[in-house]
Amino acid sequence: MILRLPVFWSRLIALHLVCLCLPWTKAAALPAASESVPLQWTEVAAGVWKATAGSEESLTLLGAAGQPPKLSALAAMSAAPFPFAGKGVVAQRVGSRMVLRFPLGREESVYGLGVDFKGLRRNGTTFQLHVDHWGGRAGRTHAPVPFYVSTQGYGVLIDSARYISYHVGIGVRLDASDKPAAVDRTTQGNDWTDLPRSDAVEASLIGPGAAIYVFAGPTPLDAVRRYNLFCGGGALPPKWGLGYLARTPLAYSAQQVLGDVDEFRRRGIPLDMVGLEPGWHDKAYPCSFEWDGKRFPNPGGFLAEMKRRHVRVNLWFNPYVAPASPLHTKLAPYAASHLVWNGIVPDYSLPEARAIFAEHLRSRVLSADPSMLMGFKVDEVDGGDQWLWPDHALFPSGNDGEQMRQVYGLLVQRILHEHFRAQNRRSYGQVRGTNAGASPFPFVIYNDNYDFSEYITAVANSSFAGVLWSPEVRGGSGLDMLRRTQAVCFSPLALFNGWETSKKLWSDEKYLGAMGDAIALRLRLLPYWYSAFAEYSQKGTPVIRAMPLVPGFRATLPPGKRGQVDLHTNPYANVKLEEVKDQYLVGDALLVAPIASNVTSRKVSLPPGRWYDFYTGKCVGENQVIEVTPPLDQIPLFVRDGGIIPLIPAREWMVEENEIVPLEIRHYGEKPGEYLLYDDDGVTFDHEKGAYSWTKLSASRGPDGSWKGEVATPQKGLPWHYSATTWRFMSAPVARP
Amino acid sequence: MILRLPVFWSRLIALHLVCLCLPWTKAAALPAASESVPLQWTEVAAGVWKATAGSEESLTLLGAAGQPPKLSALAAMSAAPFPFAGKGVVAQRVGSRMVLRFPLGREESVYGLGVDFKGLRRNGTTFQLHVDHWGGRAGRTHAPVPFYVSTQGYGVLIDSARYISYHVGIGVRLDASDKPAAVDRTTQGNDWTDLPRSDAVEASLIGPGAAIYVFAGPTPLDAVRRYNLFCGGGALPPKWGLGYLARTPLAYSAQQVLGDVDEFRRRGIPLDMVGLEPGWHDKAYPCSFEWDGKRFPNPGGFLAEMKRRHVRVNLWFNPYVAPASPLHTKLAPYAASHLVWNGIVPDYSLPEARAIFAEHLRSRVLSADPSMLMGFKVDEVDGGDQWLWPDHALFPSGNDGEQMRQVYGLLVQRILHEHFRAQNRRSYGQVRGTNAGASPFPFVIYNDNYDFSEYITAVANSSFAGVLWSPEVRGGSGLDMLRRTQAVCFSPLALFNGWETSKKLWSDEKYLGAMGDAIALRLRLLPYWYSAFAEYSQKGTPVIRAMPLVPGFRATLPPGKRGQVDLHTNPYANVKLEEVKDQYLVGDALLVAPIASNVTSRKVSLPPGRWYDFYTGKCVGENQVIEVTPPLDQIPLFVRDGGIIPLIPAREWMVEENEIVPLEIRHYGEKPGEYLLYDDDGVTFDHEKGAYSWTKLSASRGPDGSWKGEVATPQKGLPWHYSATTWRFMSAPVARP
Repeated sequence: MILRLPVFWSRLIALHLVCLCLPWTKAAALPAASESVPLQWTEVAAGVWKATAGSEESLTLLGAAGQPPKLSALAAMSAAPFPFAGKGVVAQRVGSRMVLRFPLGREESVYGLGVDFKGLRRNGTTFQLHVDHWGGRAGRTHAPVPFYVSTQGYGVLIDSARYISYHVGIGVRLDASDKPAAVDRTTQGNDWTDLPRSDAVEASLIGPGAAIYVFAGPTPLDAVRRYNLFCGGGALPPKWGLGYLARTPLAYSAQQVLGDVDEFRRRGIPLDMVGLEPGWHDKAYPCSFEWDGKRFPNPGGFLAEMKRRHVRVNLWFNPYVAPASPLHTKLAPYAASHLVWNGIVPDYSLPEARAIFAEHLRSRVLSADPSMLMGFKVDEVDGGDQWLWPDHALFPSGNDGEQMRQVYGLLVQRILHEHFRAQNRRSYGQVRGTNAGASPFPFVIYNDNYDFSEYITAVANSSFAGVLWSPEVRGGSGLDMLRRTQAVCFSPLALFNGWETSKKLWSDEKYLGAMGDAIALRLRLLPYWYSAFAEYSQKGTPVIRAMPLVPGFRATLPPGKRGQVDLHTNPYANVKLEEVKDQYLVGDALLVAPIASNVTSRKVSLPPGRWYDFYTGKCVGENQVIEVTPPLDQIPLFVRDGGIIPLIPAREWMVEENEIVPLEIRHYGEKPGEYLLYDDDGVTFDHEKGAYSWTKLSASRGPDGSWKGEVATPQKGLPWHYSATTWRFMSAPVARP
Repeated sequence: MILRLPVFWSRLIALHLVCLCLPWTKAAALPAASESVPLQWTEVAAGVWKATAGSEESLTLLGAAGQPPKLSALAAMSAAPFPFAGKGVVAQRVGSRMVLRFPLGREESVYGLGVDFKGLRRNGTTFQLHVDHWGGRAGRTHAPVPFYVSTQGYGVLIDSARYISYHVGIGVRLDASDKPAAVDRTTQGNDWTDLPRSDAVEASLIGPGAAIYVFAGPTPLDAVRRYNLFCGGGALPPKWGLGYLARTPLAYSAQQVLGDVDEFRRRGIPLDMVGLEPGWHDKAYPCSFEWDGKRFPNPGGFLAEMKRRHVRVNLWFNPYVAPASPLHTKLAPYAASHLVWNGIVPDYSLPEARAIFAEHLRSRVLSADPSMLMGFKVDEVDGGDQWLWPDHALFPSGNDGEQMRQVYGLLVQRILHEHFRAQNRRSYGQVRGTNAGASPFPFVIYNDNYDFSEYITAVANSSFAGVLWSPEVRGGSGLDMLRRTQAVCFSPLALFNGWETSKKLWSDEKYLGAMGDAIALRLRLLPYWYSAFAEYSQKGTPVIRAMPLVPGFRATLPPGKRGQVDLHTNPYANVKLEEVKDQYLVGDALLVAPIASNVTSRKVSLPPGRWYDFYTGKCVGENQVIEVTPPLDQIPLFVRDGGIIPLIPAREWMVEENEIVPLEIRHYGEKPGEYLLYDDDGVTFDHEKGAYSWTKLSASRGPDGSWKGEVATPQKGLPWHYSATTWRFMSAPVARP
């Protein structure tokens, strides 16, 4: 039977029959073509615009993180116009790729695109963002966050769980309007560059499309703030989380752990949390999520002993489930097509799987003492390719290996964060892989790198990515351990990770005093750290600030330093501009310049305005590069003019819930100062319901030149855990010896 | 007007109208799903089977290379069954990926997947094949050929111009039938491995699909031979190409080049070709493809002077066209969406663009003297990402940046090869980026690496990939230059690349004699090299053979050597089995063990059967590891028992077309020997029409124990360019001093 149809219809049908036979292959076999994709911008929150290029996939980064934006905090920020008004943001389909193009001005610098360990400025670089262990490859890192911030004061997020490729200011287009000239390298070698400047940031991903979010400024820091608030605001650790953490060796028993804790106490080294490594499971790599009966025969008894010592416990795991675990049977229906170390890989993009895992942790693990088991260390959610599932792995949700690679760390953090939140107890832990949307998660990234300067660069880079990073100490010799300990105490999480070393913090008596001092200072600075974290949580302001986020700071040294490149061994070695990536601010007032053990002095680049030595209060300069030679027991620290730093007395463990302590308030410099001190109960989420306070501390000089400090009266009924306050005017002549 | 249709048709049309509106996005938005894809195997040549998973794209690797397979040579090989008969090769669509799975036995090892510089054996590794400068990343290399060969005696090629990802023997599947057991790492650390063995090689690519070719053995070497023949057979360089090449500095003038050539002649160092670097163009990076009027005011006159000196000329270029070049206007209609160093990137997948480029070279460049300009060095077709176009670049053919990245080097080689072939003059040149299908191209890969041992590993790896690789010498100190020169003289292309050094081969008088000896030996071995290349061309047998291709050789040392890993600085450092990757065979009889300048002795692993010192004829052992301490003027060389090595007298430049020279034939060892000596006119493609000869050389011992050598009578009318022949029985007592 022949059905007669008008030619147009019959052609359609004929074409479609081909489609039916080879539904996917036909579609993909379409020749690569350039097709313009419309972008419709909508303001979805104050100063945050969204457009969708093509169509969003069901699994996105923000969706995997699943935390609601802080809309009212965004609304409280000053109004700002759409940064790309009148400038073309272009979306285009090329073959299987969705291509996005954002304008980039001649004088514009771009930061972000995740936490790498090499540099800060992204212009002239290509990235393929891919959750992985950091190994020196641009874009492959523990936090390959597809968010960048421009010196022009805006930020851009591409919310896709795909491996997004970026060309930042390179890859000049044939049709570019602002195009550099071709240069003859033979005769004009000094004018030639291997990276001609392009007028765009280009990004591409393979998939149907993605949502783009643009965050207004007006400053780069404001753009970062809006990003963090849109992700749900920054994490606020419990007060004890800002104390000190020590991880014990791989297979330590309860008895051995208690022995180590007693050593800390005996030597007066502060300690707030112990991290148990794989040995708490009865099977690990893959994990059982069951207490080991031999090493921990009585978890409840062990935890009671820890409680007596004021030391909470953190538990290590990787999320791959051992066949012998009772959890295996429960999660088997949600297992991916591939195993990791022969354990199943649960599909945590499915709420059912998340619930099963959380319930197992609650009933079989944390039940030993929910008040003491207050955090986890989530390992192996970063890579590398040879350990995790392939990109082509298939998960029961229909998501593939690439997507799940990008979000697995996010999903596990979400499970744990939501668990603790439901218990109304704040947690603070570690994670090896994360992504955009993670700002509210109380997890600090760690890895297996150990290069001191790369570590510090990662701390700085974390400030562009809505994540926290800590340069953990893992052993080393006496002086090396000391300098690393000083550095880690000025990072979001101060810890010693002794999982694979026989060394202890007290192994070298020579440095023991200085080591204890470094950790004691960490705890003393609680009010300063805690207020900075509260700013992160409520206003999105990062706790750590890389130098490009400091107003007026010249982020890169002048060009022209071509450096020495050995053209015989590698004729194409890149020469990069130097940048200041080995120092950063904690909060707004404190400049941290960690020093490695292999040098006795280092350079510090001071931002505009006078800066003062933290220890002596003496002025060290302004808007200049200084050389400092710190004594062994000091990490170089500087406070801005008018800076106020609140401290508590030295102690061996952090203040407990609602504990009241005296306050020392230091003022530095010549200018009057104002500071907002945050407080709450220190452990619950009641602050989200308004149970918190911001108290103004002010320092000013009277007509006679004498300094005076004032603490605003704390608002009645709101938390305030300080008794006596003492002011110290560090830079005043009387304060000097 | 409403057209009434049966429900089935109207649904089809409705669905299809959606497709029309969003043709691509609709297709890509399909949820990831696992869909089995049928594979139909067809024997397309003797011992070569093809199946297409999904559909092939219009641009493939073999298609880009465009060379016809040598079907009759394949047919002449012994018959062999389909290697996967009864074993499952599986194709599956997962989301946007086509996934291919090949069985891998417990005792099976896999080699190939391109020329990297680290190791040979691929089991336990992930690769993403991607044309790039080698920088230590698995799969990113100058020749990421998606062909592997198994110790079970078969080979597999995936013919796709996509970035193909491989998991070789890792990535255990949930549904695998042969699955390792989970191990508790805490208590059974010695039994635990970070790379549990999987029973498959899995590969995936994003696209509609690809053709898979399977090559039968029975031996691994046979599988490589079939692969090379299917690609069109190996390259056969002209005789002069097996002499010595020197590249002059960047901006040398004609006068300076001639000066250097005269220095070679004055010092008696052989020289056959000079390579001119960017300065021959009047603009470079991007290139003009026009002689520079200042440095080369009279190219014809310069070439006449070179001809007098018997030195041919090779010309450097990168294929990106300068705006100021006359070629720019001609190729502008074929330019890609992105520039490279502000030059256009012509779409050489289009025959029109290839023809324009070839015609420009012919009429504007080679026309200066087509008999002297006999090769090119094709630079910058390898990467990195920051220099070349992005993956999302669009080419006028409709191909995207990813595809063109994979084939650009192939396409340029094809243009040049087809040009010289049309002129009936053989060429020999260099290229930085290539891929599958390149076997017939007379190009040798080079790069900017300079690690001696990595270089040697790359020479070995080239034997699994149908490509040639040369560890070029680029300067260095006296002894370093000498040891590198000795090594490069036992690679496919012997050269000194002086583009960016003031050093010359004769800069250090102390090593000058040994340097000249090394190069003289290179030329003396012409008959051996030339016959090995003829085997490559006619029978597909690689000239270089990595040790795993040598029958009976134990490719990896016994396991159990866990090595020393510092778990503090990197707890996940991989421990790999040691393998013999610093030596290889040239042809069938000669074992080459290059020695670096920083050691005075090295280990050599001898395959089964006795081996003899090339220089003395003394037996050095069999099937064992020996330690050798070569004098400064010798690279360690060994000949197998019964091996025959033909040589010509030392000379300053290679034999010219149809030049006749005496022959010295060396026999080594105790066993009788047979050898086939190849000959033709040395410069044209007439050998393809039958103008060549294979002449049998035989050595045997008479009843009285005395050795006798015999040269079969050359067939009348066929090329034979040898006059007197002298036999030397190197291991016979009389031959010893």
